[in-house]
Parts: sequence; structure tokens; C-alpha cells
Amino acid sequence: MLEILVLAGGSGTRFWPVSRRLRPKQLLALEGERSLLQATVDRLAPLATPERIWISTTAELADAVRAQLPEVPPAQILLEPAGRNTAPAIGWSLLAMPAARRAGPVAVLPADHRIADPARFREVLAAAREAVAGSDRVIALGVTPDRPETGFGYLELGEPLPGPEGLRRVVRFTEKPDLATAERFLAGGRHLWNGGIFVFRGEALLAHLRRLAPELGAGLDRIAAEPARLAELYPQLPKISIDHAVMEKLAEIATLPLACGWNDLGSWDALAGVLPADAAGNAARGELVAVDAAANLVFAEGGTVALLGVSDLVVVRTDDVVLVMPKERAQDVRRLVDELARRRRTGLL
Amino acid sequence: MLEILVLAGGSGTRFWPVSRRLRPKQLLALEGERSLLQATVDRLAPLATPERIWISTTAELADAVRAQLPEVPPAQILLEPAGRNTAPAIGWSLLAMPAARRAGPVAVLPADHRIADPARFREVLAAAREAVAGSDRVIALGVTPDRPETGFGYLELGEPLPGPEGLRRVVRFTEKPDLATAERFLAGGRHLWNGGIFVFRGEALLAHLRRLAPELGAGLDRIAAEPARLAELYPQLPKISIDHAVMEKLAEIATLPLACGWNDLGSWDALAGVLPADAAGNAARGELVAVDAAANLVFAEGGTVALLGVSDLVVVRTDDVVLVMPKERAQDVRRLVDELARRRRTGLL
Repeated sequence: MLEILVLAGGSGTRFWPVSRRLRPKQLLALEGERSLLQATVDRLAPLATPERIWISTTAELADAVRAQLPEVPPAQILLEPAGRNTAPAIGWSLLAMPAARRAGPVAVLPADHRIADPARFREVLAAAREAVAGSDRVIALGVTPDRPETGFGYLELGEPLPGPEGLRRVVRFTEKPDLATAERFLAGGRHLWNGGIFVFRGEALLAHLRRLAPELGAGLDRIAAEPARLAELYPQLPKISIDHAVMEKLAEIATLPLACGWNDLGSWDALAGVLPADAAGNAARGELVAVDAAANLVFAEGGTVALLGVSDLVVVRTDDVVLVMPKERAQDVRRLVDELARRRRTGLL
Repeated sequence: MLEILVLAGGSGTRFWPVSRRLRPKQLLALEGERSLLQATVDRLAPLATPERIWISTTAELADAVRAQLPEVPPAQILLEPAGRNTAPAIGWSLLAMPAARRAGPVAVLPADHRIADPARFREVLAAAREAVAGSDRVIALGVTPDRPETGFGYLELGEPLPGPEGLRRVVRFTEKPDLATAERFLAGGRHLWNGGIFVFRGEALLAHLRRLAPELGAGLDRIAAEPARLAELYPQLPKISIDHAVMEKLAEIATLPLACGWNDLGSWDALAGVLPADAAGNAARGELVAVDAAANLVFAEGGTVALLGVSDLVVVRTDDVVLVMPKERAQDVRRLVDELARRRRTGLL
């Protein structure tokens, strides 16, 4: 058995204008017909059935999440009164599980990543489940880097550990390095990206959390003792990620390589490698007509996009917005959202 | 008195996707609320009242033209059974006028140009009317060139003529010169653009036409004799422009300078100088949010256009199409239309 905890409470602006406050990235179907959240659940079968799946999300996304995941027991869709980052979300979700279930292995998964090879992904999760059985060990799945990404955390590999093939100690967590450091990590071959996927026994993680983040641990225990006061107490929890609260401080943490075509779809340009492309490298969802145009990314929720003589652009069309930017500026979409917020164009946020 | 003949039968692709087969450029409101055709009529008052205005258009545009110009007498909205270029359109329109009216001065105007200074424009038309009174003279209004445009015809200036100030003989018509020639014309200061605006006595123009283009003249006279056979005979007329059929061959033609902010709005990029612009030179119709973006032209029939880090682009949004291209490719929009025609996407043409 393996309990699955999917973290689906996030919001962000990187896929604006398709993503909005009430329709964040994990609820979007960027490729096929299924949203990233739905795909996250779909790919677990047959390793984990819906009865084993827990969803941590926010109250304002509740209706949308329930509608997308009718197969998940409603009692297992947990609603944070307010987003407090991943450490409170994971801790509270574990305490919401029946004691017998959190005593066993739990996998924490982001809801908004892409996995090209789901079968291999399930094999790695199953191996991690074996590696944490009967121990207090925490496993952070790691992705072999292919670029000096400065937006991710890195795991420095230590010695091999007894257990499933590839299991190694993590010597150090490095959160979002500068470019020179990231290039060194990439060249050295001793670092993996932290994919944000963790496997542990639930009780073990809670024990680590109470020891390493005692204020958060005490707050969570108070909520467990007085669940009727959730709406009052939860927003008082420290706002902290599981990496900062626990993982970076753990004396012993291990990793397994996640060689399954992982992609965090961090911004519009990441879709270019995922959507079908024409001979000139124009990747598109929706109808595209392109003349003398190459290497563009087009995402149209309706209508036709016509490109003439442009290259390396991102062009997105929703019912109410057209976005045009170079791929290399895809990380900066937030600046447009900020400008619209300044103008109080809340309908577009 | 001055009869006005507005040529409103044209179709084209330069303002696609806003212009379509049944909604050509002259029917579009590219600036304010009035279409180019409506503005063409509006700016004539008080020089010419609607009772003096004749519209030459095609049968398939009849409903739209009548709806846009309710003040023009319906009998003066003349419907070509098929477009045969400007010489047949002008000749047939003149023959459709009562003899007493075509005996007097007539001005032929394109329906799809912009005039920044309508008062000055009316003054030039009034001066031209005086210059053709009681003579067989034809006047082609001329625009001082500000760039070596290769898409226009040029008038070479000859000696001053007696009559209104600025009246000069035209030595030669040169249709669409190559770039070197256009640059020489621009540098020499002895050439004006042919603005496609002609003033003459109607009977005089018909006499020139019968002499210089006898096949067309005979065809027009046959239609005048048997108007019931219009639908059969008109499509048999030679397809020829008034420039080729008459103007270039006239031994004597004169010009008056048209210094009234004339702009033929030849393609999307021409709108950049016409629409309101922000401090970075982004000209827009519709809501624009721009960050690190300069010198773009945005035309949105609805929704918001968000530009990040792009410059010198044309971005157009209709209900069904988004167009993105560099300004410098604005002349090539037809290539997208051709591609859509090839795909039989007739709804978009």
C-alpha cells in the first residue's frame, strides 16, 4: 500500500493568460483533454487506486478540484483555509489521514508536472516505497539535470545506500543556485534536481517535522486536537516550504533517480517541447497558419492564429486576451499580470 | 455644382483578418466609429450634399453599402454585376447619371483613403472644379511623396498652367516604378504620387474614353442603349484601370497638389501613424498592456492584447483570428490568405 498526497493548492502566473486565480496551472489541460492534476492522478493507476489518493488544495479551488476528480473520495480532498506553503499542507494532510494509513508509506506529488513515462514513474515510486518501509528514511526523488537551471533546488549525491538500485545518500540540498553554481553542478555530474516528489512513512515525516520545525509541529497538533478551530488556527501556521522546514535539515535523506521524462512545465516555452510541431518547429495547440515563421509556440483556446515572418515567439489566445512575447521572456509573464493588477483589471487576473 | 463618384467596389487582403471578402477595407472603421467609405462621404460636406454623391460598388456589397450610407439616394448606388476595374466602373457610372449632371464637373474618389484635413481637401476639389469648367481638361490630384514608394503611380510635373494656384501640366504618368526610379523621383522633386482622385467634366471624360479606349467605349454605349442586358454585357467589358485606359494616354492632363494629409492606408503598418500611441510608440486600437515593448501596432476588435519584450510587430485580433507579423512584412498578408484559401478555410477569407 502507498498513500498518495497530491499538492494541488498552488497558484501562479506563469501560464497567464490561460491560468487565472481560480484556474491555476494544475487545473489546466495544456496537452490533451485531461488537466495536469487529472493526469497526476491518472498516471498512478494501477499503483494507487483513488481510495489511496489525498488532495491538498485551497478552499477557493474546492469546487473545481472536486469536479475534476470525481473518483477521489470527497473526504480526501483537503481544503486549506489559506495557503501556507508546503510544510503546513503536508503536515496537516498527514494528520488528517487515519493513523493506520499515515503509519505506512506516503508519496507527496506536485499536481502540475508532466511525466512522459508513467510506467517508469510508478516503478520508481514502488522502489521508494520499499526503501522507506520500516524506517524513518525520507526519499527525495531526483532528476538528472540537462541544463543549468537556476529555478530549481539541487540534491548533491553521496554514497550508494543498501536498498533499491540507484538509492544514494543526499549530502546537501542547495536551493535555487546562481548560474555559475548551477553550471558547476551540471558539469560535475554529482547533482540531481529536486523534483519535489518525496516518499516517507507518514509518521516518520511528522516526527521529523515536530523535531526540526517545532513551532509548526505544535500548531499542527493543536489543529488535530481542535479540528473545529481549523479556519482560525491554520492561517497562523508558519508559511514555510517542506524543503526549508524539514528536508534541508534532515541528517539523513536519500534519493532515487527519476528517469521518466519529468518536466515541471515551468513556463510557456516549456510547452514547445511537448506540443505537436510543424516542419519549421512551430509547436501549436489550436489552428495555426504559418508562413515564413519558425520555432514559435502557439496556444489558442479558440480561433485561428496566423503567423507571418516571426520566430521564437510565444503567442497565446484566450477568450479575452492575446499574449505575444519572445520565448526567452516567458519567465517574465508576471510583469504583465502585475501591470494589470496595478490597473485593477481583476477580471483578467 | 460638383458630382462626386466614389469608387467603392474594391476588395483586397491587406487588412486581413479584419477585412474579408464581404467586408472589404472601405467598409471598415479602422479609426473611429465611421468606416472609410462613410468618412469619404462625410468629409465632402458642405461641398457636396448626398444628392450629388454616386457610389460605384459591386452587387455583393450592395446591402452593406446601402446600410452604411442611408443618406445617399439608393438610385445613385450603382451595382456592378462584376468588378472590371476602374475604367468600366467610371464610364458606366457617368452614363448612369442624367445627361445634364454628367455634362458638369465630376470628381472621382477612392472610398478607402484617409484625409487628415478635410477642409483643405474640399478647397482643392473646389479649385479643380473651377479648373475643368468649360474645358475638356482632366485633373489628377497629386500628393507630394515622402518616401520612395514603389506601389503608387507617379505624375511628372510640367509647366505651370493658367488657373488655380498650383495647377501644372503633367508630362508623364509612371505606374509603380522600381525602387531606384522611385528614389530618383523622390530626390528630384518633380514628381507627385497619383492619388487616384480625378476631376473632369463627365462628358469630356467619356469623349476621351471613347477615343482612347474604343472597345470599352463601345461596350459602355451598348449597355447604355440596352440597360436590361447589363448583367450580360458588363462582365464582357475589358478589365482595365482608368489610368491605363485613359490617363496615361491623354495628351493633356493637369494636376493640383493635394496637401491635406492624404494616406491611402495601404497596409496594417500604415495605421501606426494614425492610431493613438503610448510613450513607447505602441499604437493601438483596443486595450493594450505593454511591458518592454515598443513601436508595435495593435488592432483588437475585442479583448486585451498583452505584449512583453517585442517591438515593431503588428498584432491583430478578430473574433476568429490572431495575426502576428513584423511591420515590415505587412505587405505580405496575402500569403496567409492564400494559404488559408489553399486549405479551403473559406470562413476566414
